[in-house]
Order: sequence, then C-alpha cells, then structure tokens
Amino acid sequence: MPFGIDAEGVYPIAPTPFLPDGAIDWDSAKRLFGWYREIGSTGVTILGALGEAPKLDHAESVKVIETCVAAVEGLPVVVGVSAPGFAAMRALARTAMERGAAGVMIAPLNTLRTDDQIVGYYAQAVEAIGRDVPFVIQDYPLLTSVVMTPGVIRRIVMDNPSCVMLKHEDWPGLEKITTLRGWLRDGSLRKISILTANGGLFLDFEMERGADGSNTGYAFPEMLIDVVRLAKAGRRDEAHDLFDAHLPLLRYEQQMGVGLAVRKYVLMRRGVLAHDAQRKPGAAMSATARAEVDYLLVRLARFDKRAAALKTA
Amino acid sequence: MPFGIDAEGVYPIAPTPFLPDGAIDWDSAKRLFGWYREIGSTGVTILGALGEAPKLDHAESVKVIETCVAAVEGLPVVVGVSAPGFAAMRALARTAMERGAAGVMIAPLNTLRTDDQIVGYYAQAVEAIGRDVPFVIQDYPLLTSVVMTPGVIRRIVMDNPSCVMLKHEDWPGLEKITTLRGWLRDGSLRKISILTANGGLFLDFEMERGADGSNTGYAFPEMLIDVVRLAKAGRRDEAHDLFDAHLPLLRYEQQMGVGLAVRKYVLMRRGVLAHDAQRKPGAAMSATARAEVDYLLVRLARFDKRAAALKTA
Amino acid sequence: MPFGIDAEGVYPIAPTPFLPDGAIDWDSAKRLFGWYREIGSTGVTILGALGEAPKLDHAESVKVIETCVAAVEGLPVVVGVSAPGFAAMRALARTAMERGAAGVMIAPLNTLRTDDQIVGYYAQAVEAIGRDVPFVIQDYPLLTSVVMTPGVIRRIVMDNPSCVMLKHEDWPGLEKITTLRGWLRDGSLRKISILTANGGLFLDFEMERGADGSNTGYAFPEMLIDVVRLAKAGRRDEAHDLFDAHLPLLRYEQQMGVGLAVRKYVLMRRGVLAHDAQRKPGAAMSATARAEVDYLLVRLARFDKRAAALKTA
Amino acid sequence: MPFGIDAEGVYPIAPTPFLPDGAIDWDSAKRLFGWYREIGSTGVTILGALGEAPKLDHAESVKVIETCVAAVEGLPVVVGVSAPGFAAMRALARTAMERGAAGVMIAPLNTLRTDDQIVGYYAQAVEAIGRDVPFVIQDYPLLTSVVMTPGVIRRIVMDNPSCVMLKHEDWPGLEKITTLRGWLRDGSLRKISILTANGGLFLDFEMERGADGSNTGYAFPEMLIDVVRLAKAGRRDEAHDLFDAHLPLLRYEQQMGVGLAVRKYVLMRRGVLAHDAQRKPGAAMSATARAEVDYLLVRLARFDKRAAALKTA
Repeated sequence: MPFGIDAEGVYPIAPTPFLPDGAIDWDSAKRLFGWYREIGSTGVTILGALGEAPKLDHAESVKVIETCVAAVEGLPVVVGVSAPGFAAMRALARTAMERGAAGVMIAPLNTLRTDDQIVGYYAQAVEAIGRDVPFVIQDYPLLTSVVMTPGVIRRIVMDNPSCVMLKHEDWPGLEKITTLRGWLRDGSLRKISILTANGGLFLDFEMERGADGSNTGYAFPEMLIDVVRLAKAGRRDEAHDLFDAHLPLLRYEQQMGVGLAVRKYVLMRRGVLAHDAQRKPGAAMSATARAEVDYLLVRLARFDKRAAALKTA
Repeated sequence: MPFGIDAEGVYPIAPTPFLPDGAIDWDSAKRLFGWYREIGSTGVTILGALGEAPKLDHAESVKVIETCVAAVEGLPVVVGVSAPGFAAMRALARTAMERGAAGVMIAPLNTLRTDDQIVGYYAQAVEAIGRDVPFVIQDYPLLTSVVMTPGVIRRIVMDNPSCVMLKHEDWPGLEKITTLRGWLRDGSLRKISILTANGGLFLDFEMERGADGSNTGYAFPEMLIDVVRLAKAGRRDEAHDLFDAHLPLLRYEQQMGVGLAVRKYVLMRRGVLAHDAQRKPGAAMSATARAEVDYLLVRLARFDKRAAALKTA
Repeated sequence: MPFGIDAEGVYPIAPTPFLPDGAIDWDSAKRLFGWYREIGSTGVTILGALGEAPKLDHAESVKVIETCVAAVEGLPVVVGVSAPGFAAMRALARTAMERGAAGVMIAPLNTLRTDDQIVGYYAQAVEAIGRDVPFVIQDYPLLTSVVMTPGVIRRIVMDNPSCVMLKHEDWPGLEKITTLRGWLRDGSLRKISILTANGGLFLDFEMERGADGSNTGYAFPEMLIDVVRLAKAGRRDEAHDLFDAHLPLLRYEQQMGVGLAVRKYVLMRRGVLAHDAQRKPGAAMSATARAEVDYLLVRLARFDKRAAALKTA
Repeated sequence: MPFGIDAEGVYPIAPTPFLPDGAIDWDSAKRLFGWYREIGSTGVTILGALGEAPKLDHAESVKVIETCVAAVEGLPVVVGVSAPGFAAMRALARTAMERGAAGVMIAPLNTLRTDDQIVGYYAQAVEAIGRDVPFVIQDYPLLTSVVMTPGVIRRIVMDNPSCVMLKHEDWPGLEKITTLRGWLRDGSLRKISILTANGGLFLDFEMERGADGSNTGYAFPEMLIDVVRLAKAGRRDEAHDLFDAHLPLLRYEQQMGVGLAVRKYVLMRRGVLAHDAQRKPGAAMSATARAEVDYLLVRLARFDKRAAALKTA
C-alpha cells in the first residue's frame, strides 16, 4: 500500500524508546518499528508529539528516521515536522525525504486564530518544505488550541496538491468526518485519506462515518487494525465488541501528559520495549497508576488474549 | 444526608428541560428532579453549564430553583452561580439560598492565570455571595482554561470556611485526588467533600483514589450511584463490570457541546423528559448521531436492563 | 446627529462613578454625562467593560441608562450588553431601548475561534435582542482573544441590517481600517460607521485611514474631539501636535486593568467625578502611580490649558 | 561592563538583516552590531523573537552569534534560545557559549499555566542548558500568554543561581518593578539586573521605579541610552522631554507583527541596514504605512537631530 491519497488501515504513532539514562534505546526502536509491520500496520508515523520529538536533537531525529525506514521494510513512514519556525521544519522535512520517508505531518502553530491565518500558515509551510513533499494535516485542537472548520480543511487541501491526508483528531469530530465525506462525494473536495486519532476514543463510529483508518498510539495497535478491518467488512457488532473490550484501557491511555507513560508501560509489559523510560522532562507513573493499568490489562485479557501472559513490570 | 463537608454519593448535574418552542418544560422538570430523588441520589446540582443557565433569565432561574427544591423533597440542591460579574453572582446566590438551596457552585473566570489570581477570585466571590453561603469549587480546566494545582485548591479551602466541596473534573485528575486525600490524612487540608465529574469518564478509579462520589450529568445516574456504592463496599470487580458496560455510551456523551443533546435524547428515550429540545442556540443531533446512540443503548441493554424497553424516539 | 450608519465624532466610553462605600455616585454620574454633551461629544457609550458593568445588578444598570439618557439631552446613548448568555443580553438590550437608548454594543464571547463561530454568534445575538435594535460590533482582541478578519466583519455587517457601527480596537489595526474603507468605496461592504478605540493610542493615524471618529475612554475627551475635528478639516500637523502632547498620559491610561483607576483619578482631579472609587473588586493606584499621573498632568498643562489648575487629589 | 547581575544600560534587541532574496545580509549585520557598540550600548541581545530566529537554520544562527561577538568587540552578547524542546535549547545555548556569548535568554513555553509549571519549566531549562550558563528570564505575557507573578520570578531567581537578569516586559508592569525592588532592598530577593522592554513604552517611568536599563528594539537605541543615563543622573524632565519626543514613533513601532517591519524600515532609512527585508513569512509595510513613518520621522527631527537627514527610502 503506497502512501498517498488512497492510504488506509492503521499508521501507529510511534513513541521513541529510551534507556533509563536518557539515551535512545535503538534495540527497542528496531523491535518496535519491525513489530508494527509484523502485526499488519499499513504505515508508521514517527516524531510526533507522542514521540518526544522536541527532546531529540537533529542528529538523533535523523537516526530515528533511518532506523524506522530500515525496520519497516517498505512500509511508508510519515515524519512529524511541526516546528515553531519554517527553517527547522524545512530542514527536517528535506532530510526525512532524503532518508526515505514517504511524507511529513504538520500541525498548525498554536497561536493561529482566524481561518485565513490557518490557511496561510499551511501555504507558507508548503512553500518551506517544498511542493514535492506529501504532507498530512494534523487537526488536533485539544493539543494546539487551533480550531479548523471543515471549510478550512477544504481550502488547505484544494490549495495544496501535496496534501494527501488528514489526521483527524478533533473532538467532537464525528460530524466533521461526515461533512468531509459528503464533500468528497459531491466533488467539492478532492480525494484525500482520512485517518483518525485522539487516542482512538471514537474509532468505532469514525470508521462508520467514513474514515479510512486509524493514526494513533494506543498500545494495542492490533485492536485498531482489527476494528478497521471489521468495520470495512461491515461486521459492525464484532468491531464494537472488540473496541468496547479495549475501551477502559484506551480511555486510561487518553490522558494528556500521562498517556505517553501509560503507553510505554504497556508496551514494556508486552515485551516490545525494554524500558518505559522517557527522556527528561517527562511525567512518571505512580505505583498506584501502574497497578491500575495492571488491573485493566488483567480485565482485558478475559476478552483479548493478546493482553494475557505479559511480562512482569 | 445533609449537604456539607461530609457529602457523598451522587449529585446528578441536571439539564433544564425545554418544550420545542423554547419555553421551560415544567412538567418534565418536576419529573426529572423527583426521579433523581427516587433513584437514590443524595443531592442535585442545577443551573450549571449543562443546565443551559446562561439562556435563562433571572425569573426563570429562580423558578427552576423553587421547582427543584420542592421536587426533591429534602435533598440538598446546589445551584451554579458562576457569572462574569459578582453582582449577578451575588444576586443569584442570595436568592437561591432564600428559596431553599443548600449551597452554590462557582467556577473560576476563564481569564484567570496565576495561582494568586485564582485564590483572589474565590476570596472576592465569597465576599460577594456572603460567608454564610456554602460553596463548591468547580475545577474543570477543559471548560474554563483555568488550571488549579492541588496547592491552589488547598489555599481556597483553608482561606474560606464556607467551602464545603470540590467538584473535581480535571483531566488527568487521578493523582490530584490522591494528593488531596494525602493532605486530608496528614492534616494539612481540612475536610471537604470531593465529588468527581468530567462526564464520569474515570469514576471507576476516582472512587478507588478516594473520591466521595459523583457529580456529573450522565443520563444513567443509577449507574453512577451503583458504582459509587459498589466501590465503597469494596466490590471492585462488580463496580468495574458495570462501569465498563456503560463506558461506550458514557464516552459518547462526553463530547463538548454535543454531549448535552445526547443526554437529553437519552433522558427522553428513558421517559424522564418529554422532549430533547434545547433553547436556542443549541447543538442538534444529526439523524446519524441519534442512530448511533440508539445502537449504543441496544448494546447496553444486554448488560443493564435499565437500558431496555425504552420509548421510541 | 442621529445614531446610525452615519455616526461620527466622539462617543466617550463612560466609567460608572462610585462613592467610597461602593454605592453608585448619582450626582457624579449626572455631571459626567452632562459634561460629555457640553464638551461636544456626539454620543455616549455606557456599561462597557470600562463601566464596571459586571459589578452592577440589573436595577442599577437600568438606572444608569435612565440617568444617562436624561443627562445627555438628546445625544444618542449606546449601551454595552455583552453577556455570557443571550437571556441576559436580550433582557438588558430590550430594557435599554425602552428607556431611550439609541443602540447596543456587543463583544464576541471569548471562547469563539473560527470565522463561522464568530459570524454565527452575532446572528444568534441579533436574534436574541431583536432585529430592530441597532448594534455596534466591538472588535477588541486584546480583551476578548477573538480575532476578526475584515472578511468576518463584512459577513456580520452584510448578514445583519441592524449593524450600524464598528467599534474598532484591533491592534495593530490601521490596515484593517484601510481594507474596510476600500470595501466601502468599491461597494462590497455597505456603509457603517467606524469609530476607533484601544484607548486612542492610534487615533491620529486612524482618522487619516478613514475612521469616522473615536469611541474610547481617555480622560480628556476634548482632545479626542479636537483631533477628530482637526483631522477631518485636513489640519494634519495641528491634529498631531495636540495628539502628541497627550500621548504620554494617554499611553499611561492604556494599561489593562490599571487604566480605569487612572481615568477615574484624572476625572476626579478635573472635577468631573467626586471620587475615583471603584466598586470591589478593583485595582487601586499606588501613591507612586498617582504621583506619576500628577507629573504627566503638569507636563501636559504646558501644551493644553485644560490640564492646568486641576483640583488637588 | 561585564554581563551579570550588575548589568545596566541598554542592550538593544537586534533584528537579523536580510537581503531581498532572503539570504542573511552579513554586511549589514556587521554594521548593525558594530553600531550598537559605537553609540554606547552596554550589550546586545540577538536571536530573540524580533530577530526572526525561528526562520534561521542552526548553521545560520551560529554564524549570527559569531558575527555579533566579533563585531561588538567585547560587549556582552546575549542569545535567545527559547525553543519548544530542551534539545534544541541546549544545543543552541552550548554553542552560543562556545562561540563567546555572555549568556542566553529564555521565555516560558506558551502552554504553561500554573506557578509551579512555570517554576518547573525554568528548572528543567537550566538543567538542559547547564548550570554554568548565565540566563535571562523573558517575562512577556503579551507574546507568550504566560503570566508570572513577582513571587514566581523570585522563586526562579532563588532556585537558579545562574539567573542573572530579568527582561521585564509585562504590561502593566510598573508595580511589578516596585515590588521586586522592594524585595531586593529587604533581602528577600537576591540581586539581579532588571532591564525593561515591551518596545520601551514605559521606559521613562520604569527607570524611576528602579529598572537598571533597557533591553528592547526601538530603532533609535540612542534615545534609550540617553533616557537611561538622564534618569540615573536624576535629570527627570530632560529624560521625559526626550522620551516624549520619541513616543509617537516608538508607539508606532510597538505593534505586534508589524513592528519589526517598521524597525527595519527606520534602520534602513538611518543607513544602518541596507534593506528592510524580512525572510518569509513576514509582514510587509504598505505604502501608506511607510509614509506614516516618514511623517513621524520628520516630526521627530524637529526635536532630535538624529532623525534628520535620513536616506530616502
């Protein structure tokens, strides 16, 4: 499946693995990226907010890109390049493409307010990175404070042929998907891929509203993959049954700031990461929080055996 | 159970029922408030953000208070009095107490930033409403943009003897409960009641962290009541089983702006409200959204018979 | 000069005078409003943010309206009716018009973000107050955090025939005036009056860009009146000479939060107000700040004799 | 005058000169930095928000540092290193110090809200850049949305021995200077240097309140230098006379977004910069705006001959 306007399936948002001393854990990184491919992901997104990108220096970021591109053996890799300045955005985007990335992801600067400011920002970003670089719009008001109407998204898409995907994580966001899909049908919006995120909290219905897949960091991406597959096959009840079984844990992960710690902890318990360390500054989980996640995993294992027989923390 | 620092259980956040023409639906209001009492609520909160309070004129607000006080037959009634100015806050608070309310709820103005500004605001509010009026701190950053540390909450509580309760709806918020409970134990914070909200999204663990109950608007308050009871009885698995069965719907309700429409729709299908109308301006549900909620109700009914045999929309 | 799309000149933004005990100082109020008329104002705006409106109860607000309408003897009175809810906005707007106000002023709610949200808000506000009530758009991002493009202002104006005036106080804002004036000339925007504010900090050039006058609270409204008159007469250097002489004090007044205290202090020293008291909660001036203003007044008196021979503080 | 807690006088905030094609204009850069020294500056600050720092890549930033350090011949150079991530902040800070900078300037991330978050952020920043690097706190709420109380500033200063200076640009900010100076006198705050900015809009009174000097980008830094000198010499009226003569232009420069274009234009007309170009994206001045500045310069030249005989635009 090539990256582009027809992209679908699941692009996990990858964390960056660290050793307890703060160095990047390259072994875990290779294992993580390879695992994404093995379980059936259709792509991988790295160096997003979840990837602790601002804590990496440029050389480290480049090596993460190279490591991921090598490990996923042909899957498209999308690289987060959001930055306060276009010089840094351009530098990372150009380097990413040279090292084999399939495209980049850009969130709006959190000071943007008016429709025109947002549209203008993407025009400038595209000019900075080059019109030949496929890019993803990240629409995540909870994080950025920037609210994009469907009309603004359409303007960005129609103005910039290199826009290939929307990472939809507005909340509430179901009607936005319906509106955009309606525009795709009536031809007033050209085709792009719509993958959804916001932790996956509404993936069940997002697929029914017309999303093409998922682009989030839940620590059981297999569930995302299964739900996307079941939804596309019209197996509605099965999709919801699986989704609902995961919802208590997924909801627990979807806590701003704390969520990354939870995800790394679950990935460690699943044996994918060697450590759940974050580079400083990072939010640590309390012993109580770990016990809560352990309890959720035990409960989940009753329905999904992939949550069973995990490593001891 | 009197209202005060020992309050516990469930205080539903009440919507205000309207007729399709925008007038208040007093019959539904009486039925709703009475129903809260019948199902085992320990109090009721009215005229919050969910209650469309800013759309009511003063006379209507007063009548809602009177109607509620009469209908709940002795249960404590808490009245939201948050306002941009202290004159309006004082007027509503004094009237509420005269009409039999047990206390008032105050959210911080959304322009407050520093710790001192927040603490100072509550000092001014208490001076405005009078030191004899018991009040609840509403801590809801998602709505107000105001972030209160545990230390700020402690300052407000210790400075103002009339503070009796925290409506905790920070997100993430579990560690905040743990911190406050630790301070209660070591004596550095005097006793107040902590009820949690944010739609109930973390009620399962909030109870385990030491919350005294729930203070939110989920359309099956019986579930909140049962989960609070089960948690207090130490019946952990049962509490989670029930909570998890409701979580898909509860999560669907917890959408900013859209949530109220969903709640009114469910309460209408349950026969408590005659209509799901909001006074203008209000967000309407699409036919697709109604069908999604219907589907969630059918699924819920497999586990909780209170969701079965509902009225046709 | 009737209030409407042809309004011009100076509409001072009036403070509300208080006695030291917090009661409204009605004698000063009558004197203040009458003085505005005597010095050549073409209208008066009351109950804005500067007027401490949120600290007044409804009965007090009504009496301020009545007092002003009587005292200005026929000058148009504009009443600020911005409110978090449309019920309160409607109630005050209808009452204001019944008591003889010429129109109302509405600022956008500070949670609005997208162009459509802003345009929609004004549509709802107009529906609430009634299409027969002339209204002023207050465009003050520094206070409201809401950024309106010229295009959004045009949409509001064209959608709502009852919109008669823009209170322009965006900053920077000169190019916005030029854009709107260009649209008026080419017919893509219907005629409205544009009065400027933001403390008057750019009045000199705003008039040259095409503003119709001033709508701010500087404590020497005579200067605003003179500058507007000189600018319209093409006496550019004289306008700037007078403006520049006042700029050090005007700049000192234009401090968020503190500015009102400075204005009341200057108006007290000028003999217009009996006291410089604010109703609680209010920002008081330090002794140092008063001495700084005194010094600025002494300096100003060298150029403008209206600043000479003031009362002792 | 070494950089440190005893710093005083004027540290101009330097723009970065560009050629019309967007390349850095190194000739103008050398001339600008050398000119700062010649006119009597006591230091120079580069790569701040005004310096278009986010538009420079790392190599360019390093060369700007080297160029400035060489051109100012011994004056202390402060380098803005504010960044969304500590990796980039550390990289630039370490490089800056290696290339001869005297210290760095750090603004808080614009998502910080509570007192503890702000204090914690500076602790993390200091850990990132190293405790051996002298740093300046930039307190500019208008730009960052972060409000620091005097108490928060004191906590940062007392927690971090490497903090040597406050760039004070809160608005209103006069009482903040008085509070901090009071704490310096009573020993509850250790000595730091306080330089003020916010375009210089209150420099006249800031000096009287106890500021040590100015740290802003006004295009006539000689005026800042003179006012600081006159104020320290107790020549109050002379200081105000000179300040007031410049205030109309200074006020015109102090427009968010537009200000940089105005400053570059004036510096070009003064012969310091060869071009007034900004690297894209940048706000251009309209022909009307240029004419307005030309007019202000003509008026200023009547009082200050340094504004006379400028180059034709």
